[in-house]
Amino acid sequence: MDSTIKKICEGDVRTASRLIRDIEDKRPDANTKIKKLYAHTGKSFIIGITGAPGAGKSTLTDALITEFRKLNKTVGVLAVDPTSPFSGGAILGDRIRMQRHAEDSGVFVRSLATRGALGGLSQAAGNAIHVMEAMGKDIIIVETVGIGQQEIDIINHAHSVVVVLVPGMGDEIQTMKAGLMEIADIFVINKANRAGAGQLQTELSTMLNLSPQTADGWKPPIVAVGDAFEPATFSENTAELAQTIEEHHLYLKQSGKLTERMHRKAMTEIKDALSSCLMEPLLHSLITSGELEKLSEKIKNRKSDPYTAAEEITEKFFQKRRGK
Amino acid sequence: MDSTIKKICEGDVRTASRLIRDIEDKRPDANTKIKKLYAHTGKSFIIGITGAPGAGKSTLTDALITEFRKLNKTVGVLAVDPTSPFSGGAILGDRIRMQRHAEDSGVFVRSLATRGALGGLSQAAGNAIHVMEAMGKDIIIVETVGIGQQEIDIINHAHSVVVVLVPGMGDEIQTMKAGLMEIADIFVINKANRAGAGQLQTELSTMLNLSPQTADGWKPPIVAVGDAFEPATFSENTAELAQTIEEHHLYLKQSGKLTERMHRKAMTEIKDALSSCLMEPLLHSLITSGELEKLSEKIKNRKSDPYTAAEEITEKFFQKRRGK
Repeated sequence: MDSTIKKICEGDVRTASRLIRDIEDKRPDANTKIKKLYAHTGKSFIIGITGAPGAGKSTLTDALITEFRKLNKTVGVLAVDPTSPFSGGAILGDRIRMQRHAEDSGVFVRSLATRGALGGLSQAAGNAIHVMEAMGKDIIIVETVGIGQQEIDIINHAHSVVVVLVPGMGDEIQTMKAGLMEIADIFVINKANRAGAGQLQTELSTMLNLSPQTADGWKPPIVAVGDAFEPATFSENTAELAQTIEEHHLYLKQSGKLTERMHRKAMTEIKDALSSCLMEPLLHSLITSGELEKLSEKIKNRKSDPYTAAEEITEKFFQKRRGK
Repeated sequence: MDSTIKKICEGDVRTASRLIRDIEDKRPDANTKIKKLYAHTGKSFIIGITGAPGAGKSTLTDALITEFRKLNKTVGVLAVDPTSPFSGGAILGDRIRMQRHAEDSGVFVRSLATRGALGGLSQAAGNAIHVMEAMGKDIIIVETVGIGQQEIDIINHAHSVVVVLVPGMGDEIQTMKAGLMEIADIFVINKANRAGAGQLQTELSTMLNLSPQTADGWKPPIVAVGDAFEPATFSENTAELAQTIEEHHLYLKQSGKLTERMHRKAMTEIKDALSSCLMEPLLHSLITSGELEKLSEKIKNRKSDPYTAAEEITEKFFQKRRGK
């Protein structure tokens, strides 16, 4: 076995961290490593935690780590930060908050930000999860902000999705709820001691009762979590949340839905891999040859259009391959 | 000239709306139409408005329509809703808010949501903007929620980017500011009568003074806008915002930056078009042939991995093309 792979499978933190860094930096050999690692993955239970900025996702993740450790499970946490293509790693504060687990060898926390213009954050997240799976973590928590399509792609790497809402976040929360409704397995009403919590709970229950989703055997439960500054209630509530997640895990296994979700996850991964096998090398060659530059100039001056340009590029690409 | 193209260039609302609907539905002939339309685009000034949910973007857009109409400019508005891949068009409420412009033939408002699993919302937004350009709108406002990479891709279709912030949105607003910092040309502090507005302004000024961006000749101004329920102040503030946007437009033209941005926009459009020329047909054939299904099953059982699968698919795809 490749020594990197061996070390990661033994749980070596430094080797795992380096590979995650390589994935984030889109180093070409990272994919080769993931390929070799793949046979050692697929055994962890993956929990996605999503919600608006300010919903308290990191505090909840931190509390869940504590709960799962009490149950003697090892935990990996991946905090995905979609806002930092420009700043690079603004989520640092969250990692600091989780420092109290730093001494615990059963906990492995890493963050991931986008770098470079080609996107692929969802693929990077999927691969970073694979590293943690190979390390043998029982539970992996993926935390992200739940808005755009890309964030939904990231959360689709999870087997169980927890959507965190807070009372009084303004009327556009409606939009958020609508968008996240279909992917939620469990809802958390966080900071439930605040004004408006009761109303949010009622609204959510009504929406859930109208949803066709409830017909398939699992009705997403709503867990209310009080303020973290009231430790007794907070820890009671987060223990209940951990319990609810475990129940969902059991449901997924017994109903055959876990297999179904793993299948869907595999489909997403093929699509992501195709993009890096086909699109990325093509774009790379267009950029380095200066052809993208030339075509953009033509389009800017309306001497061509993007579709004609794309057809020309595709044609040339095939001719070149044929020539090989 | 194609009759659809002719009608759109004459400003026909029904034809334009139908094409935007076709773009949204990813109908294959929509791209062909955009190809023909392309020569008639590139003359409008495109403003992007972005910010967190609840920041008041729609109210501001509505006020800007009024201001630009006073200056006798025709306006197109595209509200892009990235949260609705599941619910389909949750942004409806915003369109209702803009109804007061419905009688004005100089204003054209449409919303856009993602449909289908293949993504491409940024490309759809770019094409919907082209339709409005061909209609001859002087100004096009693109409104979106400013979080993930996809939303940043959407906002990159704009020549001038307005980032809307509100005081007291919790500490993760820091993250947001960091992510949007580099794309902002103008900042709005909305609901500036609220507690914390002064602090937000100070923080923002400090960040702007530290930013290397200010070196290139344009230092993003900060416009404070009061509550919409105080009509006199609100309208004074939004008039100032419209004025600031006009100044930025002038700066872009005089400094040559407008050409630069149009060039960058063309590059994005080529990338988007390549994805629909190459990736989408490939994925489509994989899905309809059942091959994606079969490969996913193998990967789920760890009998293969996504990269090996992607390589096999790519190889087969080339062989098939060679055989043609």
